[in-house]
Amino acid sequence: MRDVAVIGVGMTKWGELWEKSLRDIFVETALMAFDDASIDKVDSMYVGSMSSGLFVGQEHIASLLADYLGQANIPSTRVESACASGGLALRLGYLEVASGRSEVVLVGGIEKMTDVSGYEATYALGTAADQEYEGYHGMTFPGLYALIARAHMEKYGTTREQLAMVAVKNHHNGSKNPLAQFPFEITVDSVLNSVMVADPLRVLDCSPITDGAAAVILCPAEMAQKKDKPVVKIAGSGHATDTIALSSRKDITWLEAVYKATQQAYKEADKGPEDIDIIEVHDCFTIAEICVLEALGIVEKGKGGDAVEQGLTSLKGKIPVNTSGGLKAKGHPVGATGVAQAVEICKQLWEEAGERQVKKARVGLAQNMGGSGGSSVIHVLERA
Amino acid sequence: MRDVAVIGVGMTKWGELWEKSLRDIFVETALMAFDDASIDKVDSMYVGSMSSGLFVGQEHIASLLADYLGQANIPSTRVESACASGGLALRLGYLEVASGRSEVVLVGGIEKMTDVSGYEATYALGTAADQEYEGYHGMTFPGLYALIARAHMEKYGTTREQLAMVAVKNHHNGSKNPLAQFPFEITVDSVLNSVMVADPLRVLDCSPITDGAAAVILCPAEMAQKKDKPVVKIAGSGHATDTIALSSRKDITWLEAVYKATQQAYKEADKGPEDIDIIEVHDCFTIAEICVLEALGIVEKGKGGDAVEQGLTSLKGKIPVNTSGGLKAKGHPVGATGVAQAVEICKQLWEEAGERQVKKARVGLAQNMGGSGGSSVIHVLERA
Repeated sequence: MRDVAVIGVGMTKWGELWEKSLRDIFVETALMAFDDASIDKVDSMYVGSMSSGLFVGQEHIASLLADYLGQANIPSTRVESACASGGLALRLGYLEVASGRSEVVLVGGIEKMTDVSGYEATYALGTAADQEYEGYHGMTFPGLYALIARAHMEKYGTTREQLAMVAVKNHHNGSKNPLAQFPFEITVDSVLNSVMVADPLRVLDCSPITDGAAAVILCPAEMAQKKDKPVVKIAGSGHATDTIALSSRKDITWLEAVYKATQQAYKEADKGPEDIDIIEVHDCFTIAEICVLEALGIVEKGKGGDAVEQGLTSLKGKIPVNTSGGLKAKGHPVGATGVAQAVEICKQLWEEAGERQVKKARVGLAQNMGGSGGSSVIHVLERA
Repeated sequence: MRDVAVIGVGMTKWGELWEKSLRDIFVETALMAFDDASIDKVDSMYVGSMSSGLFVGQEHIASLLADYLGQANIPSTRVESACASGGLALRLGYLEVASGRSEVVLVGGIEKMTDVSGYEATYALGTAADQEYEGYHGMTFPGLYALIARAHMEKYGTTREQLAMVAVKNHHNGSKNPLAQFPFEITVDSVLNSVMVADPLRVLDCSPITDGAAAVILCPAEMAQKKDKPVVKIAGSGHATDTIALSSRKDITWLEAVYKATQQAYKEADKGPEDIDIIEVHDCFTIAEICVLEALGIVEKGKGGDAVEQGLTSLKGKIPVNTSGGLKAKGHPVGATGVAQAVEICKQLWEEAGERQVKKARVGLAQNMGGSGGSSVIHVLERA
């Protein structure tokens, strides 16, 4: 297996993009990545999308998007693992280049979520849960994560304010990201007084519904050395699953898929939590960021809330988390999120992150997650 | 890249399985493959499914199915390329074992299509076409393939009777396959007098709507030598795309994605059309089988209809095609079809095909296709 590098990234402004279709958004984003990498064709592509079928009535999008990108005839593969679809696409693209089967591969993620009603979007997102059990009983994702939050508060003493601080931190970072859907600051008070969604989670604890795409171009690390950017390698990759239903887990505050995938990625990268400078985590709800920090081994079990309160994960903290604004402020077009996490890590490692640049960052970790933790994909990226 | 073998297969009776859910069908099928391979766990799995979102309101099925199969925590990946989803899952599983990343991998395909109305199923299948152009103008797949059929008849003199002979041949083979949805013979007259769907295609030119799954277990060829079955290797794999819309193609009678994917697979296997003993092709409509034979290089352009009429592809012909009954008689649960093609080739190469056994078959080819040829995945399998 040979070393693989990222040589270009693309991301456009995220939000409610009613004037653009799925294919428009994807092609615009992919062409930005082509420009950034100074290429005009790829050998193969992978696309992460959770539910283009339910959101826009279009499947077979790997072929569609290769075609509209002017790359018809190349192998093009769509993968789906709910909200971890983008990270999974990145993993498969990485494995394809690492194994020597392709030289230059496009990895994209896309979701066009605002062409349907809020009810339909909630239904589509709910198909990531166990529909015959959780869905049948009326559970949607805010409810599932609310159960996790209640259990975490009960078991570890995590406070309502600590949950709010996750959102406040991510909006602070997002206010420095011009591509974010909601690039503005919020306060703990505004979170605590926002509309209740599923007790204890309020609307400002929840990531939004978003249209958007993200793209990266991968190639052998040797080829990347000829480019004018610092070489950023994918040092490790991990992928694991867990029971899809929360009710099947021994401890709903613990994300076993995240833990297992992280251990794989650390091992492959020959790194541990102490080596990581920056992290993008899957903060679909504020409680998710807290649980993920624990599963990554950044803090001990139960200490995720304290870490946020003490500033460990803030932009000027020891390990900045979600410098992009995270899913909360940047937006969460579900299939695109995992790829966008890698885009942010690359921008940071290339020192192209503008006002939110973290100094001397050399190693970054991207943590992408499906459902209530039923799947997770982890990548460790390193500046050579 | 190391050699990869199939060490077990699973397939249950296909049809309208109203008493079973998607997860029931998949788990039953996968456990058959586990038994056939004498294993009880795998390192990783790939699942092909076209639209579990639109058909049963469930995405995130790679995690769901790993969980219900008792394999929670393993990496599990769903891929989608419309009706080529199963073939694509097989390709990714093959690449994972070939690259040395995993030892034992489950590849499954599944579609549960009969829980929705015929209208909804036609809509879901239609999402494999270009929805903004073809779908918007009311095109569904029978219409698209009818255009191809008309063009082929006009350009090459292919006859209405030759189309019917494809269905007659495949039902003859299917009558010897107890797992087929429609295991009975039909006649040219019955095809010609069946209900018109989209001129010139009648209902007996069309593959049915089906519930079903198929599974194979892959491992390094070296490990397969310790089993009691003859070693069947995946000798070559190919994957290509084409424009998703028919209107973007220079010649709608020519399947460029099939041609390109086949050339890759032949090259990797160091084989040509003259080396192939048996073939499973994607006969979603009778005209498709005729066009595919041409793109595979089995016959010259325009000669697909004559080949069928002259018996070249019949069970006792020079190159038997669709010994399983094909999509037409066996059924077409879209995400499962590509995997089921590999199941049939393995059964033939292992000499486990019962009444439809082809003598001395050593090399088989499986051709899976998405949409109106917007994607295709080819595998060449060889008995060592």
